[in-house]
Amino acid sequence: MSKRIGVGLLGLGTVGTGVASILTNSQDRHPLVSELELKRVAVRDLSRRRALSLPETLFTSDVQDVVDDPSVEIVVEVMGGIEPARSMILRSIALGKSVVTANKALIARYGDEIASAASAAGVYVLIEAAVGGGIPIIEPLKQSLGANRIERVSGIINGTTNYILTRMEKEGVAYKDVLNEAQKLGFAEADPSADVEGMDAADKISILSGLAFGGLVDREKIPTEGISSLQSRDIGYARKLGYCIKLLAVAERFDSKEERIDILDLGIRVQPTLVPFDHPLAGVNGVNNAILIEGEPIGEVMFYGPGAGAGPTASAVVADILNIAGINKIGGSKTGLDPLLSAKSWRKCTLINKAETLQRNYIRLTAKDSPGVIGSIGTCFGKSGVSIQSIVQFDTTDEHAEIVVITHKVKDGEMQNALASINASSGIAGIEAHLGCL
Amino acid sequence: MSKRIGVGLLGLGTVGTGVASILTNSQDRHPLVSELELKRVAVRDLSRRRALSLPETLFTSDVQDVVDDPSVEIVVEVMGGIEPARSMILRSIALGKSVVTANKALIARYGDEIASAASAAGVYVLIEAAVGGGIPIIEPLKQSLGANRIERVSGIINGTTNYILTRMEKEGVAYKDVLNEAQKLGFAEADPSADVEGMDAADKISILSGLAFGGLVDREKIPTEGISSLQSRDIGYARKLGYCIKLLAVAERFDSKEERIDILDLGIRVQPTLVPFDHPLAGVNGVNNAILIEGEPIGEVMFYGPGAGAGPTASAVVADILNIAGINKIGGSKTGLDPLLSAKSWRKCTLINKAETLQRNYIRLTAKDSPGVIGSIGTCFGKSGVSIQSIVQFDTTDEHAEIVVITHKVKDGEMQNALASINASSGIAGIEAHLGCL
Repeated sequence: MSKRIGVGLLGLGTVGTGVASILTNSQDRHPLVSELELKRVAVRDLSRRRALSLPETLFTSDVQDVVDDPSVEIVVEVMGGIEPARSMILRSIALGKSVVTANKALIARYGDEIASAASAAGVYVLIEAAVGGGIPIIEPLKQSLGANRIERVSGIINGTTNYILTRMEKEGVAYKDVLNEAQKLGFAEADPSADVEGMDAADKISILSGLAFGGLVDREKIPTEGISSLQSRDIGYARKLGYCIKLLAVAERFDSKEERIDILDLGIRVQPTLVPFDHPLAGVNGVNNAILIEGEPIGEVMFYGPGAGAGPTASAVVADILNIAGINKIGGSKTGLDPLLSAKSWRKCTLINKAETLQRNYIRLTAKDSPGVIGSIGTCFGKSGVSIQSIVQFDTTDEHAEIVVITHKVKDGEMQNALASINASSGIAGIEAHLGCL
Repeated sequence: MSKRIGVGLLGLGTVGTGVASILTNSQDRHPLVSELELKRVAVRDLSRRRALSLPETLFTSDVQDVVDDPSVEIVVEVMGGIEPARSMILRSIALGKSVVTANKALIARYGDEIASAASAAGVYVLIEAAVGGGIPIIEPLKQSLGANRIERVSGIINGTTNYILTRMEKEGVAYKDVLNEAQKLGFAEADPSADVEGMDAADKISILSGLAFGGLVDREKIPTEGISSLQSRDIGYARKLGYCIKLLAVAERFDSKEERIDILDLGIRVQPTLVPFDHPLAGVNGVNNAILIEGEPIGEVMFYGPGAGAGPTASAVVADILNIAGINKIGGSKTGLDPLLSAKSWRKCTLINKAETLQRNYIRLTAKDSPGVIGSIGTCFGKSGVSIQSIVQFDTTDEHAEIVVITHKVKDGEMQNALASINASSGIAGIEAHLGCL
């Protein structure tokens, strides 16, 4: 057998344990797995008992020991958080070691810095596990879709919120109750805000967009809305109109009138969105994720699978290790980097102003149930240039009626104007919900 | 700009034209596309007018001109058929040129010969377009799932039959009528037998199985059944029981009692199969394809998209060209082949005897409508060791009743015994249909 390839692990939580378990049990997997050897593992607490038995000599509580160990050729960062993950990745790169990381928050924010460092040092930083858990999506974007002019990337890329939404829809339970149960079952964190407020999905769509369109945008500027204020009644009304509600992350190209060959304008957003029942993303339930890519000439392709979990995520991490090991076998990066695998940015991408983004909208209003109210809502929308597809009156009490409006595609700026004028209108008690609509 | 990479095209039909159109219009695609240059194109008829205008000097009617042209570094075979495709691929390999092909019939039959030649010559033969049209499935199997012990690959991998089945189901039209219309619309060939008899799907599952499990089986021995004798009434009954009917191709590992570490037993089949409405493959309609991979630790992942068509297939072909170009930029195969991309067989796989394969079954019988007939059917199945999940009586006329039986998972040998004894039983007029059931 040829010389084995040394792997160092930063972190031995759920994903780290999954990775170690594959590396130490290679039977029936691709034969290249048996050429990987776990050389060093950094853990926070050396005294803790672990599910997987590994030789004591592998462990250290100092992450830098792993990075600096000369027998470690590939560094796997699965500890999460910004620091010391970022420093350790940069240190590994500086030492000429390729890196595998599942750290979406880090890559969404420091992806350019890390990519530049990797490119200068002639090493790879692979991130398949950062988006979509076990679903192969990063590598296909890099290695299988390059012939295409990508139009749009849209996806359900947060398992926690999709689990909550699925249960709210199937069982008619309120958000708070499902969240509590999800936390008990381990599908939601004790502090669920990164998931339920859409921040995790925004990290991931930022990364997908960077690969699909060739450049990262400013992560912090991505308009992001979560599901924490979503009400069951909107799920019910959507259902009656032929839609389910999903937390959708979307990145789409936006061709400006001026031809700017080197800059691409993108609209990116994370938002609870109505999805028609016959849309491919509508059937994605529970903790599953799916990413839909639209482009020319491919049309639509979708990647579907488990969006989280130790096993699936470890599958993605080890896939990245194998890709680096495969390249190492043919001389590594001595002769340069494979441009597909290294996936350097190749153009500047910028976010368009939110007011300029185009989409369909779902609005729920409470109105005084007077005969003229539907007409006056129609007039408000019309004056702001918002074209309505449907307007339906639901529950009516003595005092109020609930009215749901679905618009055609309109600019968000015009939509905001219409909502302001409706809010000021005397027949309207309030705008209760405003969601996106595919 | 660095030196451009010369591409030669064997064939300029639908897919070839799609490829040429991407290569000659690189704007907005991955920048590596602009480094590819179409150098030579072999066509059958030089005088034919073409949709895409290319310099006359590119054309030749002799395929060998393309292969032998020293400016052609990558040979793209999109002419189809066994010969001269096979000879030209082997000749390209012998000349040290990597090859991209969409030829599933060729790879399913001569994949081992071609892979050995490529490995000996140190070149790549990439085949993304051979299965699933534009869907990235070959490269993800090679490059993204190697950490897994694959359990099963199942898919809808023939667009023509899926188009026919979808229309039969949605409109209740008979097979013959839909086929005629599909032929008029260009969704089915004038001679549709390779599609409707399941041969095309068998070629493709053979290739997928080879990559998923590490070795090709004997293509000609794959049990293959098409949809040409499928009746609308079975689609209707399946629907009432909660299933749709799909032409499914399945390859699954079959762990024999004796541990044989270097040989893996596989059950592979192509067969019209009942798929429960809530199964991920049930929603795959029209000319779309989808491939579901099950493995440990990943669980289930699915790849979905357009299974045919010039654009999608060209997207897959150009993806392969880009992968070779990417490797060429880092020194090509001078230092050996990347084991993931070259995907050499790594173990022997054999087909198990059909009688040993396990599956659920759907049977439709016509029975004389006598009170005891359901009991006697149950007895026949029971004596052969076939456990029944449901038995339902549908349309009853004066003389006959239609009875549909769905079994639990049983060995095909036992199933055949049960059917023989039922056929011999006096209350039974005939066994009208026998399909698989997920």
